[in-house]
Amino acid sequence: MMFKILKVYTAGESHGKMLVGILSGFPAGFKVNLNSINKELERRQRFYGRGKRMNIEKDEVCIVCGLRKGITLGSPIAFLIFNKDQKIFPFKKDDLSKILNPRPGHADLAGILKYGFNDIRNVWERSSARNTASLVVCGALCKQFLKKFDIDIFSYTLQIGGICINKERFSYKDIKSKISKSPLNCPDRISEKKMISLIKEAENKGDSLGGIFEVVARGVIPGLGSYVDIYSRLDTRIGAALLSIPAVKGVEFGLGFELSKKWGSESHDEIYYSPQEGFWRKTNNAGGIEGGMSNGEDIVVRCVVKPVPSLSRPLKSINIITKKPSLSSVLRSDLCIVPSAGVIAENMLALVLMDAFLEKFGQDRFEDIKANFLHYKKRIYP
Amino acid sequence: MMFKILKVYTAGESHGKMLVGILSGFPAGFKVNLNSINKELERRQRFYGRGKRMNIEKDEVCIVCGLRKGITLGSPIAFLIFNKDQKIFPFKKDDLSKILNPRPGHADLAGILKYGFNDIRNVWERSSARNTASLVVCGALCKQFLKKFDIDIFSYTLQIGGICINKERFSYKDIKSKISKSPLNCPDRISEKKMISLIKEAENKGDSLGGIFEVVARGVIPGLGSYVDIYSRLDTRIGAALLSIPAVKGVEFGLGFELSKKWGSESHDEIYYSPQEGFWRKTNNAGGIEGGMSNGEDIVVRCVVKPVPSLSRPLKSINIITKKPSLSSVLRSDLCIVPSAGVIAENMLALVLMDAFLEKFGQDRFEDIKANFLHYKKRIYP
Amino acid sequence: MMFKILKVYTAGESHGKMLVGILSGFPAGFKVNLNSINKELERRQRFYGRGKRMNIEKDEVCIVCGLRKGITLGSPIAFLIFNKDQKIFPFKKDDLSKILNPRPGHADLAGILKYGFNDIRNVWERSSARNTASLVVCGALCKQFLKKFDIDIFSYTLQIGGICINKERFSYKDIKSKISKSPLNCPDRISEKKMISLIKEAENKGDSLGGIFEVVARGVIPGLGSYVDIYSRLDTRIGAALLSIPAVKGVEFGLGFELSKKWGSESHDEIYYSPQEGFWRKTNNAGGIEGGMSNGEDIVVRCVVKPVPSLSRPLKSINIITKKPSLSSVLRSDLCIVPSAGVIAENMLALVLMDAFLEKFGQDRFEDIKANFLHYKKRIYP
Amino acid sequence: MMFKILKVYTAGESHGKMLVGILSGFPAGFKVNLNSINKELERRQRFYGRGKRMNIEKDEVCIVCGLRKGITLGSPIAFLIFNKDQKIFPFKKDDLSKILNPRPGHADLAGILKYGFNDIRNVWERSSARNTASLVVCGALCKQFLKKFDIDIFSYTLQIGGICINKERFSYKDIKSKISKSPLNCPDRISEKKMISLIKEAENKGDSLGGIFEVVARGVIPGLGSYVDIYSRLDTRIGAALLSIPAVKGVEFGLGFELSKKWGSESHDEIYYSPQEGFWRKTNNAGGIEGGMSNGEDIVVRCVVKPVPSLSRPLKSINIITKKPSLSSVLRSDLCIVPSAGVIAENMLALVLMDAFLEKFGQDRFEDIKANFLHYKKRIYP
Repeated sequence: MMFKILKVYTAGESHGKMLVGILSGFPAGFKVNLNSINKELERRQRFYGRGKRMNIEKDEVCIVCGLRKGITLGSPIAFLIFNKDQKIFPFKKDDLSKILNPRPGHADLAGILKYGFNDIRNVWERSSARNTASLVVCGALCKQFLKKFDIDIFSYTLQIGGICINKERFSYKDIKSKISKSPLNCPDRISEKKMISLIKEAENKGDSLGGIFEVVARGVIPGLGSYVDIYSRLDTRIGAALLSIPAVKGVEFGLGFELSKKWGSESHDEIYYSPQEGFWRKTNNAGGIEGGMSNGEDIVVRCVVKPVPSLSRPLKSINIITKKPSLSSVLRSDLCIVPSAGVIAENMLALVLMDAFLEKFGQDRFEDIKANFLHYKKRIYP
Repeated sequence: MMFKILKVYTAGESHGKMLVGILSGFPAGFKVNLNSINKELERRQRFYGRGKRMNIEKDEVCIVCGLRKGITLGSPIAFLIFNKDQKIFPFKKDDLSKILNPRPGHADLAGILKYGFNDIRNVWERSSARNTASLVVCGALCKQFLKKFDIDIFSYTLQIGGICINKERFSYKDIKSKISKSPLNCPDRISEKKMISLIKEAENKGDSLGGIFEVVARGVIPGLGSYVDIYSRLDTRIGAALLSIPAVKGVEFGLGFELSKKWGSESHDEIYYSPQEGFWRKTNNAGGIEGGMSNGEDIVVRCVVKPVPSLSRPLKSINIITKKPSLSSVLRSDLCIVPSAGVIAENMLALVLMDAFLEKFGQDRFEDIKANFLHYKKRIYP
Repeated sequence: MMFKILKVYTAGESHGKMLVGILSGFPAGFKVNLNSINKELERRQRFYGRGKRMNIEKDEVCIVCGLRKGITLGSPIAFLIFNKDQKIFPFKKDDLSKILNPRPGHADLAGILKYGFNDIRNVWERSSARNTASLVVCGALCKQFLKKFDIDIFSYTLQIGGICINKERFSYKDIKSKISKSPLNCPDRISEKKMISLIKEAENKGDSLGGIFEVVARGVIPGLGSYVDIYSRLDTRIGAALLSIPAVKGVEFGLGFELSKKWGSESHDEIYYSPQEGFWRKTNNAGGIEGGMSNGEDIVVRCVVKPVPSLSRPLKSINIITKKPSLSSVLRSDLCIVPSAGVIAENMLALVLMDAFLEKFGQDRFEDIKANFLHYKKRIYP
Repeated sequence: MMFKILKVYTAGESHGKMLVGILSGFPAGFKVNLNSINKELERRQRFYGRGKRMNIEKDEVCIVCGLRKGITLGSPIAFLIFNKDQKIFPFKKDDLSKILNPRPGHADLAGILKYGFNDIRNVWERSSARNTASLVVCGALCKQFLKKFDIDIFSYTLQIGGICINKERFSYKDIKSKISKSPLNCPDRISEKKMISLIKEAENKGDSLGGIFEVVARGVIPGLGSYVDIYSRLDTRIGAALLSIPAVKGVEFGLGFELSKKWGSESHDEIYYSPQEGFWRKTNNAGGIEGGMSNGEDIVVRCVVKPVPSLSRPLKSINIITKKPSLSSVLRSDLCIVPSAGVIAENMLALVLMDAFLEKFGQDRFEDIKANFLHYKKRIYP
C-alpha cells in the first residue's frame, strides 16, 4: 500500500518463537552494516518508560536470506528476531489461560468480533506493537542506503503528557547532539526531567502517558513523490506509513494544524536562488513537501502518540462470555512509548523515502542507481 | 495504495476538455442515483470562498460505462466531467503563454525540476485540486452503497483562520441539521459570520485562509480493517485517503493531538454492554477506531487545510529561466476551501469504508454482499 | 497484476456510447504520434474473417487527458473510443430484448450465475473482445516509446484451422515485409489462400475457426524482468498479458511445447562472444528469456486462439429462465480473429516490456530514462 | 501480481541456512494439518529423476508465526525450511570459488549483466528452483482449505522426452489411483517404464529431459474469476502462477493448442441441465474456464517443462571475465523434473483458486466464509 517498489512483509506473535520479516526490492550490491540495524533495534527498546519486557530481551536481527558475504544480492532479504519472552507454540498446546476482558483502547474487542475468537490472546498477540521491531529492521536497511545519498533521518520527543519543549530554541544540529544521550530522546534537559517525573507518577498511579514526537529527514533531493495521482504523493505515503504505527492517532507536516490559523501570505515558503545552493527557502512551513513532492527542504512530520492503553490500574470492561461488567485484563506493559514511536517513525520514513528513490532512479543495482541519481542531480543543479 | 479492492483511477488537466475517471470493483446489481452524485459535485463547488471559476462551471457527471438502465453491471464504471473553462488541447497548439515564476506552496517548483519542464503550466494543470471532482464522483457512488447498510457520512467546518467553533455545544444531529444551509458548512451561525468577514478581509488583502474540518461516519459495523498488518489498518487507509487531498497538511483521529496531554485512564473508552445495543461506549476518544479496526462507534477524523497557495497578491519567487527574483505567477483562485475539502474528505472516507466493506463481505453482487453482511451482523449481535 | 509500474485501466460495454481507458505511469516529455495509434486500431479491425461490425465502425482514439501540444505530461493519459454501433444507454431505458440462451464457449453462463443477472446481455456487453481496442491504444503508446530504444514488435499468423505455414522457410525480415499487405497477417501466400478458403467454408457452414499466431520483440536489452521472485519474471508477466486476451487458450515461449521432446543438450542456446556484438547465440530455443529475464535475443511467443464461440449456426444450450433445452443465442460475430489477436498481443507485449523498462530505468522523464538506459548499455557492452 | 487477496512472499538462497516464506491473508479459525504440508514437500522431492541433493535433504516445514495451537489466527503465517545442504553464510566469508562460465538455459548470463555481479553464484543461489519449496508450503495450506469446499487438485505426468501417454485411456478417477505409487507421477505403467529408461539414458549421456504435465482441479464452483478486466480473469491468474515455475515454457487450458485445428462447432462445450446437477456439459474442451471464470467443470491445464539446463556434460559458454570460450560450469543437478513441477503446479493452482475464493466469499474467518459460500451455492443451485 504505502510502498510501490519495496515489499515489506512481516509476521509474528508477541510471545511466539520469533518475528519474521521479508524485505523485497532492495537493490543488489549494497554492503549491509549489521551493527547499525541492531542499534536501531536497541534504540526502539531502551528509552525510559518502556516496560519490564525490555529488561528480559534485547532484540538482535538475524538476517538469513538475501545477503552473501554481507552484500545484498537483489533477492529478497529475510530476517528473524527471536523472542526471548516466548510462550506461544504454534503447534503444541500452550497452557495459557484465556483472556476474556477486552482492554479499552486496544484491538481486543473489535478483534474478537471480527474473527470470532473466544480468547482475546488471539488478538493481542498480533496487535501488539512488538511487530514494529520487524519494521525497524526493514527501515534500518533503508536508512543505511539513503545515507549514501546524504539523507539523514532522526526523531526527537517534543511533548509527553502536558510537558512540551520549546522547539524554537533548538536548531536541528543542536537537537541531534543533545538527544544522543537522552533517556527520552528529548533535546531539552529541563523538560526532560519534568517528563520523567510525570512518567514516574504514571507508574505510581497505574496509569500511562502519550505525547508528540517529530521526525525529520534532511538532504532529500527535490522531486521524490508526485502530484499526478493520489497514490504517488509523498505526504500521502509518509502519512500512511506513520499512521500504521500502533498508538499514533494523528500526523501533521510542517506547520501542520497551526496552518489553520494563518494567512496564506504567512504560510507559504518564498523562493530564493543562489548559484551555490540553487533554489532555497528562508522558511519551511510546508515541512519539505509541496504538491506531494519533496522540495529539497527538510521533511518535517509530527505525530501524536496516545497513552499506552494497557494500564496496570484496569478500566471498565465487559467479560466477552458472560457479558457481565468486569475490569479490563491487565498485562505487563509500557508506561510511555513516545521516544520509541519516534524511532519506529524514523525507520518507516526511511522505507517511504527509499521507495520513492527507487521509483525515480531504478532498482537493480546500487552503483547504477547512484549513476542515475548523479545524472539527475546534475540536471537540476546545473 | 489506500484501496485494496476498489480501483480508483482518474485523469485530467485543469483546463483540458474533460476529467475522466474509472472506478473498478463496484459490485453488480446496485441502482445508481445520478442526482445524488451531482449533488456531491455541487457541494464541492458551492461554498463561500471558492473562486470565480465556480461561477462559470457547474460540474455534472456523465457516466458512460459500467451501468445499464442505471444499474451497475459489475464492470468498471467510467465517467466524464466536462470542463466548461477549457483552454488546453491535447494535440493542437494552445496559445497560452508560458508560466515561469513558481508559486510557493504549490507543486510548481519541485514539479518542473522533477519532470524537466520549461513551462510551469505543465505542472499546475494536473496538480490543481480540480482532480478532486473525479474523486468525489467515485466516493459519491460508495456513499450511496454504504447508505444501504445504514452508514451515514458527513463533514462540517470547525475552524477558519483564527475562528473556531465550540464543538462541545453541538450534537451530531444538531450539526447535520444546521450545516445543510450553511455557506461554510458550519453549524455555528455566529462563528460563521466571523469566518465570512475574515474571508472578505482575505479577498481585500489578496490573501487566503485555511482551517480545520471534521468528517464523521456513523453506523459503521465493528471489524472493518485489521491489525494483522500495516496495510490493513483502517486508520492508515483513511489517513492516506485524506492526506491525498491537496492542501491537507495534517489528520487526526478522535481526540487526536489532544491525547498527548492526557493520562491513559482519561483517554480510553471504557466498555459497556446492553442486550439491546451490544457493546457500547460512553466516550469516543478513539474516534471509532481501535487496533486499526472500526469498533462500532462513530468514526471521527479532523484535517487541517492550509491556506490556498495561489494568492492574488503574489509572493517572492524566482524566474525559472533567468533565475532572477520575481513575483510568483498569479492565477484566478479560491480564497478558502475548507468546506469543499470537507466534502472531498467525506467521499474519500466513503471510498475507504466501502473498500474495507467489500474486503470483508465479498465483491460481486449487491444482494450477496447484503446476505453476507446480515450473517455477520447476526453473529456479532446475537 | 501483470504490470508493476504502468497502471492500465479500461471500461466500456460493447454497445455503449464509448470505451474509456486510462494509462497511468507513462513518463513525461514524450511526443505522441496519434496516427500510429490509430494504425494499430485499424490493424486490429481490418483482417479477413472479422465480422460485419468492422464495416460500420473504424475505431479512432481520442486522447483527452495527459498530453499538451501532443507531448506527455507525466500525468495519466485518458482516451475515448466512440462506438459507432451503439445501443446501450447507461441511464435511459434501452429497448433491447433479453438474451436468455447462453452461448457455449462464452462468459454467458458463468457470468449470470456469478452476478445473478437475468439477462445475458449484461454479461456479454463487457465480456466481448471489444475491450481489447482500449488495450491496443495503451500498448500502441508503449510501442512508440520502445521504438526509441530500438525495440521492434510484430506478429504474424502461423496457423488457421488445419493450415499451418512452415515457419523455418522465413526469416523475420522476410516475414515483416510479407505480412504488411496480407489480409491474414500471414507471410506465406499459398497457405494464406488455403486459410481464406477455409474461412469462407466456415462462413457458409455458420461455423468459425481458430489458429496460432507468433509475436516477436526484437532488440530487447538483456536484464528486463528478474528471477528474484515469481512476480518479477518476464515470462510470467508476458504470459499473463497474453492469456488475458479473450480466446487465447495457451501460450508458449521459444520452442515451447516442442521442448518436451528434446534432450537438454539440444534445447539450450550455447553462448558465444564477439567484441562487436557482445554475448550472442546461434539458436534461440529459449525465445529470448532465460531465468525470467530478457537475454538479448528475440523474444518469441506463440498463442493459440480458440475458434470464435459466437456461431451463426447455434449450439445446444439451456434457457436460463425455463431451464428448457434451446439453441444458443445468435449475434453478429467474427469468423476468425487470429490475426487480430496477434495485433492485440503485440500491444500487450509492448505494455509488459515498457513496464519492465521503467522498472529498470526510472519513470519520470523520457530524457532521463534515456540517459539511464545508455549508462546501463555502456556498462554491459563495454 | 497473480494474487489479489493473498500475499505470498518468499526468500532464500539455494545453499543458505534456510528458506523463509510469509503467507498473508489466510483466514482465521482454520485448523492446519502439518503432515499434509510435509507430504507435499516430500512429493516435490521424491520422484525419479531428481538429483542427489534429494538424498541429503528431506524438506520439513517449520511454521513459526500465524498459528496458535495449530489453528490460524488471521495474522500472517511465516515458516522456515532449513537447508541441510548449506554453504552460504550471509555475514561470514564463504570460501566458495567463483563461478565464471554461465550455463545456457539458466539465469546465469542475463543475471550477471543485470546486477553487475562478478560471480555467477550470486545469481544461481536465488534463481535455483529450490525456492519452489516455499511456494509449495503456501499452496499446501490453500489445498487444505479448498478441500473443505470439496475442491480436489492433482497432477500427473503426460509426457517425458518423446514418450507420451494416451490420456484418453484413463478417467481422472483412474489416474488418481494409479499415480499414487508411481515413481514418475504417471498413470500408465508401460509408458512409465519407457520414461525411466530414457531418464537413465540421459544420466549416462550427461544429458537431461523435459516433458508435459497436466494439473486438474475438480469441484470448483462456477463464478471464480471474472471477465470484467484483464486482472480478474481466472485463466490469466492461473497461467501467470504456472508460468512462474522455473522451466515451464508454455501453458494451455482444456484442448489448448489443439483448438487451432478445430471448427468452432467442435470446440465449445454444449450446455445441458438437470434438476439434480444444475447446468452441465458432456465435453470439457474449455478446461473448466469460460470468459475468464470457472464454469463448474474440471479446471484442466497443461504445462511444458523444458529439459533441466544444468547438464553434467557441459555446453559451450564464455568465461565472463576473460571473454574466452569455455564450457559451462557444472553443478550437481536433476535429470528430469516433470513430476516435481506438476506438484509445484498443483500448489500454485491452489493459491490462485483460494485467492479467487476469498475475493468472492470474504476473507476474515473460515466459518463466515463457509456461510457466505453456502449462501451463494444455494442461490445458483436452487
